[in-house]
Amino acid sequence: MDKGESEFFTMKGYVEHTHGLSASMEDYLEMIYRLSINGKIIRISELASNLHVRPPSASKMAYLLKNSGFILFQKYGYISLTEKGKNTGEYLLYRHETIHRFLCLLNQSDNELEQTEKIEHYINAKTVQNLAHLNDVLNVKKKS
Amino acid sequence: MDKGESEFFTMKGYVEHTHGLSASMEDYLEMIYRLSINGKIIRISELASNLHVRPPSASKMAYLLKNSGFILFQKYGYISLTEKGKNTGEYLLYRHETIHRFLCLLNQSDNELEQTEKIEHYINAKTVQNLAHLNDVLNVKKKS
Repeated sequence: MDKGESEFFTMKGYVEHTHGLSASMEDYLEMIYRLSINGKIIRISELASNLHVRPPSASKMAYLLKNSGFILFQKYGYISLTEKGKNTGEYLLYRHETIHRFLCLLNQSDNELEQTEKIEHYINAKTVQNLAHLNDVLNVKKKS
Repeated sequence: MDKGESEFFTMKGYVEHTHGLSASMEDYLEMIYRLSINGKIIRISELASNLHVRPPSASKMAYLLKNSGFILFQKYGYISLTEKGKNTGEYLLYRHETIHRFLCLLNQSDNELEQTEKIEHYINAKTVQNLAHLNDVLNVKKKS
């Protein structure tokens, strides 16, 4: 989409997907990565219960992630990440934690999960990087 | 929705509306307020062209805003804001400008419109207020 500097669009006017992943697919991939680094065995049922969705919804989304090359289904219905899935999942978790840490430092709170979950899909890599730097500065200031 | 501190939900799991306004309604009301403070005469056609949508979409949304008590239709199809519409529009514009200014300061850029438009609907009043304070600090730092 070609946009001038002061051109306004409605929410729907912007493409909501990044690197082929919808906001929902990002939520699922981030959760699969989160469970995988905790050494958990991941099946549709675990994924669904961790995301508070019904198993058929989790199943549908897992097939989308499989078809896009992010995950594999193994014996007994276990889900594992491909190399691409690992890399993207790692970035999604880093993005989540960077934004959450920033909002907590900003609002002097310890839980900004709702706002983080809502905005993280729309925050680009440059902003994530600069927020990480800012978090370090704010953290030092908080401690001093 | 009752959520524990470390409970995760997908994007869809969160209520996306604030004070009875959907993200789209917020975009429209913000634009109507923006045009009104510039002293522009506002009709459906101006609203549609400024938001890059088709007039029937703008018309549908304007009726929703009218039914919710944010705007009035006057003679010749002119749109005007009610007191409630003015107050909310003013807040939406302030929220937009605060977030945009923050992202510009953070990324040392002069155009962060796309990210701003995408995330502003999900940023709460406490965060807006604290971002405004942070902008002042970052702005002083930038100048010094």
